[in-house]
Amino acid sequence: MSDPLPELDLTADVLTLTRRLVDVPSVSGDERSLADAVETALRGLGGLEVERVGDAVLARTNLDRDTRIVLAGHLDTVPVAGNLPSRLDSVDGQERLYGCGTSDMKAGDAVMLRLAARFGVPGAEPARDLTFVFYDNEEVEAVRNGLGRVARERRGWLYGDLAVLLEPTDGVIEGGCQGTLRVVLTVPGRRAHSARSWLGVNAVHGAAGVLATLAGYAAREVEIDGLTYREGLNAVRIEGGVAGNVVPDECRITVNFRFAPDRDEDQALAHVREVFADALAAGVTLELTDSSGGALPGLSEPAAADFVAAVGQPPRAKLGWTDVARFAAFGIPALNYGPGDPNLAHTVDEHVRTDRLQPAEDALIAYLSGSDA
Amino acid sequence: MSDPLPELDLTADVLTLTRRLVDVPSVSGDERSLADAVETALRGLGGLEVERVGDAVLARTNLDRDTRIVLAGHLDTVPVAGNLPSRLDSVDGQERLYGCGTSDMKAGDAVMLRLAARFGVPGAEPARDLTFVFYDNEEVEAVRNGLGRVARERRGWLYGDLAVLLEPTDGVIEGGCQGTLRVVLTVPGRRAHSARSWLGVNAVHGAAGVLATLAGYAAREVEIDGLTYREGLNAVRIEGGVAGNVVPDECRITVNFRFAPDRDEDQALAHVREVFADALAAGVTLELTDSSGGALPGLSEPAAADFVAAVGQPPRAKLGWTDVARFAAFGIPALNYGPGDPNLAHTVDEHVRTDRLQPAEDALIAYLSGSDA
Repeated sequence: MSDPLPELDLTADVLTLTRRLVDVPSVSGDERSLADAVETALRGLGGLEVERVGDAVLARTNLDRDTRIVLAGHLDTVPVAGNLPSRLDSVDGQERLYGCGTSDMKAGDAVMLRLAARFGVPGAEPARDLTFVFYDNEEVEAVRNGLGRVARERRGWLYGDLAVLLEPTDGVIEGGCQGTLRVVLTVPGRRAHSARSWLGVNAVHGAAGVLATLAGYAAREVEIDGLTYREGLNAVRIEGGVAGNVVPDECRITVNFRFAPDRDEDQALAHVREVFADALAAGVTLELTDSSGGALPGLSEPAAADFVAAVGQPPRAKLGWTDVARFAAFGIPALNYGPGDPNLAHTVDEHVRTDRLQPAEDALIAYLSGSDA
Repeated sequence: MSDPLPELDLTADVLTLTRRLVDVPSVSGDERSLADAVETALRGLGGLEVERVGDAVLARTNLDRDTRIVLAGHLDTVPVAGNLPSRLDSVDGQERLYGCGTSDMKAGDAVMLRLAARFGVPGAEPARDLTFVFYDNEEVEAVRNGLGRVARERRGWLYGDLAVLLEPTDGVIEGGCQGTLRVVLTVPGRRAHSARSWLGVNAVHGAAGVLATLAGYAAREVEIDGLTYREGLNAVRIEGGVAGNVVPDECRITVNFRFAPDRDEDQALAHVREVFADALAAGVTLELTDSSGGALPGLSEPAAADFVAAVGQPPRAKLGWTDVARFAAFGIPALNYGPGDPNLAHTVDEHVRTDRLQPAEDALIAYLSGSDA
């Protein structure tokens, strides 16, 4: 059973196009139909080299410009929560398009397709070469991430002077991103019946010091390229206990460290070890379970500085980890900039303000039409 | 399909009888066959009033003695672990009977049956009236406990001047028992993405104070009737956490308080509240989830004092909670005294030293034959 291929009209305005994308459901792992439609539409433009990698669609101009800009957006959404098909509604005089994926991030994908329709046709004269990356499985575990797959299998496609991810940022440039790592601290003890607890060593009581260290931790604020990053060290899980009458012999605390991009992963881990040095000396063990480096904002790079000027609004630091770090790992400055509202992502009430769409398209057109830096 | 009723010869020696009881499997909930055999054997003696309550078997003399002694033992065992049928073995010159239920507590049941055979026949002249309680489901959750059922449905059968539970105590009198209660302390917080943790309140970090209080708690030692009780306050479980990138909004700590029998349940709970007063004032909540009062040793009661003299060994405090508290709730002094080894209960290697059986029977015979106090 195959659905008829949904057709995308890239000459439609950005709102119409957003709505069309939203109405093709594409929950992570189920992006094929939408990827097919995007691939067909891009091939139809006639001015782009197009390549398909699984359910990622790659397309680029080859105009020998001095700079190349990579625009990236994921096609997948979190699971639909009874919020499809899309609907337009007006709340307090504000027009909104409701539906799964509106803000995160089909509005951004629609802006990308509009730019492709303008600059990816024969005879177009963008000031910079353009690469479009539409990818799958961003909303699920990192190993499935389509951008990661492209980075492994078609790395050359990702090179450029600046990468812009059209993730929801409310129309503000968010520079770089913070790194994140997780460690599990295991406090040892010795089991005993709780009626004779002095024969044991209570591992949960032994966690008091680790929690006091966390409670008293003074997180750093770091300014980089004029943006302020704010770190955080948090227990995100604690568990311990055998039975209601047994002194626990183990307490496990999972700690998440969000670190500013002036630290690399090794430095971040060394810092965490230093913070818990007393506990580690006392027999607590530390295991790194997860680590992703951050990305420096790179806003002083010429291509990025021009983009900031084109948007005309002060950028801010990106605190969460995002796929910009995948570009940063190749030394490519990358930032987030999109029309969606990040606070609405993953909510049943997800929507996008319709008056945010055209300004995003216009800012990017201005940037890409301007003099080549 | 019904097994033939196993026959019990109560004239056999206590080791033979222990072995016979062990070889009739009676895992909790599956005691019927053994209870039938015990009931039949007791009825056959001719000097006892016998009543059956579910799979509990009650029997008593009615000789108008001035004092009445209740002897109680459970018939059930923990699940068999490949350790049946029983076998005799000699280790380092020490003869042992191996098998599930040997120590906990069919050796004790066998002693009870030997006493029934001696004092529960027409013409016997025990110095005290005797009540025997063989009951089911001691090794499982309290609501199924057969002694509790007898207390609810046939309370009159439990009255006496002293109750002796023949639980494994290695031939030493264990007086009274400590109480136990559990509370769940819930530390509140506010959820936030861990990349913006300052927007939340980390409930796990908030548990630092509670754990420090537990780690620093100085447990009381209390002497009652010459026995030393040792209290304990322990976290037996801790849990908190939503996801690897979320600041937890709740941390739950289950605390078990084992308290000496000079405190009743209300006083014990009030003490726990006082210990955590600072945390409670700061918004931590406390919920009582489980409470069982202790039992005073009552060794100064004449019937108990005579028993201590008959055994001729110094008694010690019972620290774990046991069914003696069910008697204590009716104002009946109760103690544990049995031939089994408590350290071997519930182990695959469970066994009983055969040289511990006859002395237990002899001490009880001496006590029950002596002058009525």
